Amino acid sequence: MEKISKSILNQIILPRNPESYKGNYGKVLIIAGSTHFGGAAILSSSAAVHSGAGLVTVATTPEKFAAINTHIPEAMTIDYHNKKELLSAILNNDVIAIGPGLGTSSVAIGLVKAVLNNTKTDQTVILDASALTIIAEEKIPLQTTAHIIMTPHQGEWQRLSQLEIPAQTELNNFEKLQDLNPDAVLVLKKHHSEIYFRDMSFKIIAGNPGMATGGMGDTLTGIMAGFIGQFGYSLATIQSALLIHSIIGDKLNEKQYVVLPSEIIDKLPKYMQKFSLQTK
Amino acid sequence: MEKISKSILNQIILPRNPESYKGNYGKVLIIAGSTHFGGAAILSSSAAVHSGAGLVTVATTPEKFAAINTHIPEAMTIDYHNKKELLSAILNNDVIAIGPGLGTSSVAIGLVKAVLNNTKTDQTVILDASALTIIAEEKIPLQTTAHIIMTPHQGEWQRLSQLEIPAQTELNNFEKLQDLNPDAVLVLKKHHSEIYFRDMSFKIIAGNPGMATGGMGDTLTGIMAGFIGQFGYSLATIQSALLIHSIIGDKLNEKQYVVLPSEIIDKLPKYMQKFSLQTK
Amino acid sequence: MEKISKSILNQIILPRNPESYKGNYGKVLIIAGSTHFGGAAILSSSAAVHSGAGLVTVATTPEKFAAINTHIPEAMTIDYHNKKELLSAILNNDVIAIGPGLGTSSVAIGLVKAVLNNTKTDQTVILDASALTIIAEEKIPLQTTAHIIMTPHQGEWQRLSQLEIPAQTELNNFEKLQDLNPDAVLVLKKHHSEIYFRDMSFKIIAGNPGMATGGMGDTLTGIMAGFIGQFGYSLATIQSALLIHSIIGDKLNEKQYVVLPSEIIDKLPKYMQKFSLQTK
Amino acid sequence: MEKISKSILNQIILPRNPESYKGNYGKVLIIAGSTHFGGAAILSSSAAVHSGAGLVTVATTPEKFAAINTHIPEAMTIDYHNKKELLSAILNNDVIAIGPGLGTSSVAIGLVKAVLNNTKTDQTVILDASALTIIAEEKIPLQTTAHIIMTPHQGEWQRLSQLEIPAQTELNNFEKLQDLNPDAVLVLKKHHSEIYFRDMSFKIIAGNPGMATGGMGDTLTGIMAGFIGQFGYSLATIQSALLIHSIIGDKLNEKQYVVLPSEIIDKLPKYMQKFSLQTK
Repeated sequence: MEKISKSILNQIILPRNPESYKGNYGKVLIIAGSTHFGGAAILSSSAAVHSGAGLVTVATTPEKFAAINTHIPEAMTIDYHNKKELLSAILNNDVIAIGPGLGTSSVAIGLVKAVLNNTKTDQTVILDASALTIIAEEKIPLQTTAHIIMTPHQGEWQRLSQLEIPAQTELNNFEKLQDLNPDAVLVLKKHHSEIYFRDMSFKIIAGNPGMATGGMGDTLTGIMAGFIGQFGYSLATIQSALLIHSIIGDKLNEKQYVVLPSEIIDKLPKYMQKFSLQTK
Repeated sequence: MEKISKSILNQIILPRNPESYKGNYGKVLIIAGSTHFGGAAILSSSAAVHSGAGLVTVATTPEKFAAINTHIPEAMTIDYHNKKELLSAILNNDVIAIGPGLGTSSVAIGLVKAVLNNTKTDQTVILDASALTIIAEEKIPLQTTAHIIMTPHQGEWQRLSQLEIPAQTELNNFEKLQDLNPDAVLVLKKHHSEIYFRDMSFKIIAGNPGMATGGMGDTLTGIMAGFIGQFGYSLATIQSALLIHSIIGDKLNEKQYVVLPSEIIDKLPKYMQKFSLQTK
Repeated sequence: MEKISKSILNQIILPRNPESYKGNYGKVLIIAGSTHFGGAAILSSSAAVHSGAGLVTVATTPEKFAAINTHIPEAMTIDYHNKKELLSAILNNDVIAIGPGLGTSSVAIGLVKAVLNNTKTDQTVILDASALTIIAEEKIPLQTTAHIIMTPHQGEWQRLSQLEIPAQTELNNFEKLQDLNPDAVLVLKKHHSEIYFRDMSFKIIAGNPGMATGGMGDTLTGIMAGFIGQFGYSLATIQSALLIHSIIGDKLNEKQYVVLPSEIIDKLPKYMQKFSLQTK
Repeated sequence: MEKISKSILNQIILPRNPESYKGNYGKVLIIAGSTHFGGAAILSSSAAVHSGAGLVTVATTPEKFAAINTHIPEAMTIDYHNKKELLSAILNNDVIAIGPGLGTSSVAIGLVKAVLNNTKTDQTVILDASALTIIAEEKIPLQTTAHIIMTPHQGEWQRLSQLEIPAQTELNNFEKLQDLNPDAVLVLKKHHSEIYFRDMSFKIIAGNPGMATGGMGDTLTGIMAGFIGQFGYSLATIQSALLIHSIIGDKLNEKQYVVLPSEIIDKLPKYMQKFSLQTK
């Protein structure tokens, strides 16, 4: 398993073209949040905005609009119960991330199906948290032609793959991913998180237990969406998103016993610039 | 096309008269926001407050009052569905900025018409974002006697002028602006943004692609409104508002890959003071 | 007219008794806010909390509870439409400040009357903003036996006193205050704000035009309430509250063209400590 | 009475195991807040998150969800009126803290009973504020087999114990605690706060009168819950939570006349790291 080097960040986070505009940095749709899990929608959309996505729309339950507007006024909101608006949003965004705080209600199940049924080549679908639980429980096939990225932690991967945690070996993970969708990328969140794609596997040597707190995964999902929105879908982009999340977390952990997701989000623009300037 | 010099800021942002009070710094009405675009109302009103407007009122949909109160308690709110209150606000404010996050619903169309039909000499109307789309789509004539400032990005200007982006040359822009309203000011947002007025044109050499993010235009609109409220309507005021927005953005971009609108807003009081002290 | 010296702050802001608890620092009720003016309730209650009031309750319209909870979780809330709860709160608080953002509806008029009819010796009533307009328009006599402090700006004082601004001379102000209530204190907000009490008058040489922004008066009201809650009602306490508000504003103005109310509030604990430590 | 030494913090706040995940740091349920006391739920849950609890759920009234999501997006929310969801939450969390801002309504009484009736060995119940008042007024026996911690201030302890404050001597406190529940821990909040357990008593020499402000107790409750969630129930954990709250308050008080609860919360990750690094 190959170790992901920090140099990947210098290759991906390039200085922006002065003639560019927000349309060049991707349209990102985050389908997230429900009555009991409102914060997940805030954290994932805030992470997408701070990581540089051009335009971020949150599809959520309307009772959460006020909190999203207050916390992250740069994001737009739509009601995910409105099928017409949801479908239009799925068709018109470059990256669709679904799952943080979504729950497993029948509404949520319908949302996951709507994404898998209506996305296509050139789009990227990020499946996280509740979306992965729904796919495991409802046995929903991953048959979109869009790029697929799954971001389970070990417990979620167990539900998806039927592999107990000790059995989540490199070989087993390859095999199960092949069964689910041979072209999908698996980002397995753990102590040293791993990425699987076809016959390749990678790991990061970064991350710390101060990051073991609710909302940390929602934040990674938002960064992943923001990075793919602006840098395009590639293994290197996925590696970069995973790595920068943990690098910032490690830096904060030097002085903090606990690292809050919202603190990592705040630091994104400065760390991205640091890596961008190193590329010159 | 004349380059706008930073010295314009020293001429416009003068030390305040010690005997002045908030009534001297303008009454600004921001008509903005809708169910899906609540943040735009927050960003534009927050920018107006931070840029020094004496009194800022936001006309929006009531479901957004809580987020506005939380984010920017210095601003007042009215419900733009209430025709009597809206008309009273249009008549009693010095600067009316309309468009950020307004959408193109029939309510929004009615709001644009209400502003154009009820403003008059000595007032300034800033038309931005959705308001410009509505004017283009509904072919609404710009016949108020108030000062008019339009702040489209290139795509919005295309809708208004029927000029494809490559055809948005200086000469073509002059001609189309003349057709729309010979006394209006056009602020064309692009890499190096431009200002057109009658037979004059200006551009700023400032701004950066880190500012290519949702909400950045809403912020400029708020600054423009705040500046005209306190410094009065003039080409120099408009130039100053456009320039300071990008100067702050450039300064932040030195250390940040992405520049968030809310960060530019926070820095306004300090940058304005810097230029004010240089005038002494 | 006597100039208020900074030394008053060293006399009033004394080190706290180590054996004290929050009950020693006053119970403050802020009756403020309405649909269109939600921020005023936030700013005045936040100022009261940051200036050290033991317990702060905001009586407002329930639609503003969410914004208050978010912005200033240290404050409690009650619905001012609930007559029983309102009366209980009026009877059980040491300081009642009424007016910021209240508007002049019949509900607001009833609230002003409820305060004046139900407060008594040992309590302090601070009348600000809309409460002063209501008293002027409804000709409500100031007949409570509680201490009364009025905090008008010049326009509000004109409405109360019938004195045009040029006629607001020291002698005229004494006379009109005598007519309104011979034991009330008048805090007249202007360039160099003034305090009138019986045959005494004082002024501060502090304050700046960068403070000429919406919400600044609401903030002073909150500081006044917080100071009286913890330091007790006295002319020196009133002078201290007025002075510290402008001293902090002046300090911020050195680096900021515009001084926002919420920034003054944030600095209160540090400036109070600075003056407290000088008393040792 | 033994003085609690700072060295207890070095013993409890140990460096985290790199292989750990959020499930290792405890599931904390905070039952708090009501219409008039929304901030208490925010402060206690924010304290639990910042002190390192793995997962924090707030059971409160749904009208407070928006403020909680905005202020502390890392926390989840449930409606405490929903008996099924509440019971499930009580059964599935490691630490249940009940009381901050709960009020004494019949709903609140039902919540206290639900906690005492449905918790068991290996869980910890923290009873604070309104929960203690309800237990005193309703004479509810403390008969859960879970660990019990009570955190009254002197007035609340008087209601529980029938001991007037001057009679709250060490011996009397031992006796009354014995009557209430011989295995419960009493954390008595006062100038130098005290801990009683069986025949042992401890006190901290820390804390200051700048902390005498509304919401400070809610914050301690959240820290206590967060510490027990991650470090496990023990006298040393309880001592550590009580001590760090006052140590941070003392540090802030050096420069601030008033110490706000939300400021103590913000500093938790840094102070915890400081003590953790000293253990190496």
